Amino acid sequence: MSTQDTSALRERLADQFKSFVDPAFVLAEESERKPYECDGLAAYRHLPLIVVLPETIDDVQKIMRICHAEQVPVVARGAGTGLSGGALPLENGVLLSLARFNQILDIDKPNLCATVQPGVRNLAISEAAKPFGLYYAPDPSSQIACSIGGNVAENAGGVHCLKYGLTVNNLLSVTIVTAEGELVTLGSGGLDAEGFDLLALITGSEGMLGIVVEITVKLLPIQERAQVVMAAFDHVETAGQAVADLIAEGILPAGLEMMDQPSLQAAEDFVHAGYPVEAAAILLCEVDGDNEEVSEEIARVRQRLTDSGATEVRTAKDDNERARFWAGRKAAFPAVGRISPDYYCMDGTIPRKHLPYILREINRLGEVYGLRAANVFHAGDGNLHPLILYNGNEPGEIERAEAFGGKILEACVEVGGSITGEHGVGLEKINQMCAQFPPEEITLFHAVKAAFDQQGLLNPGKAIPTLNRCAEFGAMHISQGDMRFPHLERF
Amino acid sequence: MSTQDTSALRERLADQFKSFVDPAFVLAEESERKPYECDGLAAYRHLPLIVVLPETIDDVQKIMRICHAEQVPVVARGAGTGLSGGALPLENGVLLSLARFNQILDIDKPNLCATVQPGVRNLAISEAAKPFGLYYAPDPSSQIACSIGGNVAENAGGVHCLKYGLTVNNLLSVTIVTAEGELVTLGSGGLDAEGFDLLALITGSEGMLGIVVEITVKLLPIQERAQVVMAAFDHVETAGQAVADLIAEGILPAGLEMMDQPSLQAAEDFVHAGYPVEAAAILLCEVDGDNEEVSEEIARVRQRLTDSGATEVRTAKDDNERARFWAGRKAAFPAVGRISPDYYCMDGTIPRKHLPYILREINRLGEVYGLRAANVFHAGDGNLHPLILYNGNEPGEIERAEAFGGKILEACVEVGGSITGEHGVGLEKINQMCAQFPPEEITLFHAVKAAFDQQGLLNPGKAIPTLNRCAEFGAMHISQGDMRFPHLERF
Repeated sequence: MSTQDTSALRERLADQFKSFVDPAFVLAEESERKPYECDGLAAYRHLPLIVVLPETIDDVQKIMRICHAEQVPVVARGAGTGLSGGALPLENGVLLSLARFNQILDIDKPNLCATVQPGVRNLAISEAAKPFGLYYAPDPSSQIACSIGGNVAENAGGVHCLKYGLTVNNLLSVTIVTAEGELVTLGSGGLDAEGFDLLALITGSEGMLGIVVEITVKLLPIQERAQVVMAAFDHVETAGQAVADLIAEGILPAGLEMMDQPSLQAAEDFVHAGYPVEAAAILLCEVDGDNEEVSEEIARVRQRLTDSGATEVRTAKDDNERARFWAGRKAAFPAVGRISPDYYCMDGTIPRKHLPYILREINRLGEVYGLRAANVFHAGDGNLHPLILYNGNEPGEIERAEAFGGKILEACVEVGGSITGEHGVGLEKINQMCAQFPPEEITLFHAVKAAFDQQGLLNPGKAIPTLNRCAEFGAMHISQGDMRFPHLERF
Repeated sequence: MSTQDTSALRERLADQFKSFVDPAFVLAEESERKPYECDGLAAYRHLPLIVVLPETIDDVQKIMRICHAEQVPVVARGAGTGLSGGALPLENGVLLSLARFNQILDIDKPNLCATVQPGVRNLAISEAAKPFGLYYAPDPSSQIACSIGGNVAENAGGVHCLKYGLTVNNLLSVTIVTAEGELVTLGSGGLDAEGFDLLALITGSEGMLGIVVEITVKLLPIQERAQVVMAAFDHVETAGQAVADLIAEGILPAGLEMMDQPSLQAAEDFVHAGYPVEAAAILLCEVDGDNEEVSEEIARVRQRLTDSGATEVRTAKDDNERARFWAGRKAAFPAVGRISPDYYCMDGTIPRKHLPYILREINRLGEVYGLRAANVFHAGDGNLHPLILYNGNEPGEIERAEAFGGKILEACVEVGGSITGEHGVGLEKINQMCAQFPPEEITLFHAVKAAFDQQGLLNPGKAIPTLNRCAEFGAMHISQGDMRFPHLERF
């Protein structure tokens, strides 16, 4: 499109949007659009064609109908904290921010649920539910800032999803506006929804199937007590095996986190959590429940960790110490940021029993690429966050870091895991999707996408690679042009 | 199709199937096909064109390729225990039985999972896992007989799904053969699968998206102890309110079942469970966990039930009494069969807080239709199984029973529930789907179906009504022929 055509389109959209959205929330000037040029994956930036912040569901429907008529793509954005570029705008597309959808509409204690708008912050739900003795379980590290709509889009996890499940396990229903501006509610207030499970399908679909405009989340009763045990190990692999042992024993902690020496040293230097910095790795194991239940479980956890070879097992002696143990874990990313000019955060998952293997493999690959990795894991879930340390000012280091990261993810896939646990695919991991999925399944993804959005207007180019892209990436071979869905051959 | 053409097609298919399937498992004679003419919903019967029992995944792929080439529809069948007609064959279609897929392939203790073939019986998984201290949680009443493949197709529940979730919450991955004979594995051994959640989509899809040929289920550690409390109430509504109170209190029992007077009287007369037959309703509340945890929780449950107005609260004094309490519940359906010539089992769900209302409404509708209902509920889930008592030999009674049942389901939808909790839609509830879903969502369902099975060869005519059918049923109005997906207008 020529610059002139682009300007004309922008002006036409602005005029139409301003007929129902307060003009202060239709952003057409470059300076106004600039803050929206990236999300939490700041390495990628595009200035959107225009930004609009609707206030009502009706506004969103009108915007989608206009964009459909104009055949303009739309990228939805929550709080913009995503780490995989899922909310990266398109230069020829509308950026639709849901920041003004910030109301908690209902807290329903008897049914243990809350109905909220998508722009509500994750933590704000638990704060509002607290007077009812309830909370919302999924707790991504960004929970102070990230929005529940973004959580639905990415199927967000967190420290406590080992016991309480991912976002998809904590939803009752979601209302979406489709690519053509229709309003559809998926799920129900009841046990199970019949027909196909479109609620699960929309969760984690990264804004490609519909715009989420209302959400009913499940709430849980606040637990009477939580307690944390820290265990130190001489070898990371022993710590990895201890995780597998603990789960195999039938212990299901609320959270089970692992940090290796570089991470725990960095965290200790930063927040003085009281970690044993001489250890090769530590585990943090949180147990919650009734008072007696916690006491009993803590005893089992301590015994199991000792039997698995922990050199030191320490139960937080009070709430202050518990808070300090967790402060170290939560500060691990910025702490690593202090010891390396740059780092690249990965997000692979593996079946738990392969933890010792994958730790060896990360170490081996680090030697191959001449780079160090600091490992911070949701160990209980088998969700790895290796932080690859590099210096972006050194020629070639960023490329080596990316190659190293790609190899880690491929190793995850090889042992039966996946390339992302909770950060989404977005733009960042789109090439690795070719390694994860055979062409048959990628074709199915495109067919499902087309079922919701035939013109491909919602967040195009994200999450699901085209078969051509995979062929170019070289991770996949299309066997004799065997495309099963002729009406989809443009993908 | 003329009789001659039908015979020729049957012969052609038989010849092709016998080239790779042992001829003893290709059933073309009428007497051989007869046992497959219905599933657990015996009111509907169709003699299938031909029956085939493949042995390997490769067989299934070949069968699907042949059927695709011949454009012959295929209905998959597990154990045939389904209650909604989901495995009802087509007279012009192949009935593909997975009975020979009966192997447990792997039990993986460290990863708490088992890989099984779809024809394995639900209970057989827990039996095989027992030596490892593990079990498979979802426990439909038919668990002795029903197959895990059928459980996936219907997203089966059971008494314990209140605490442990439905089938969809207990799966890691599923391998399917598509309508065109491709093999695709959905889900992964890791925490979360990226791309769209096709695993959840296939679960409960009633054989319409693919043929399930291999399943990896999650296993849980066997609990140390289980205990049950029985509470009696003077009014069913008080019992309904007690359920809502218990859950709102933050108590999550392993199972929470309710029976009203007609059901408990029938069960008592049949199995002598020790129920207080003068009560208007009873609740059975099971708690499981560690020894101390169970003791503490039982005390909380007893207190809460007393506060909610129970006239009697009795903890099973030993395992024998616990088994008797459950024997009554499990025998409730056949027990009701002894007091009424016929009964019609419904399967609606509602948000828990509406239990008292829906009980009043069932009572009111019973008076309108001049029929009695016996109520047996998975109360904790809000999953109702009203059994409508009628006499099929009395002219007009079956029609009144069906109309009564339909009204109950519509009342469930009105309060935000759904028309089926765990039995599936199949053929039985296809008209009520029109009441449950607006045309926009039904159109989405058809689009998703087409994404997997463009020719509509897999279990056509089940679960998702056509918009025409809904228009004829009268529950829905298509606004000015507003069909969003022009390529789908044949639906």
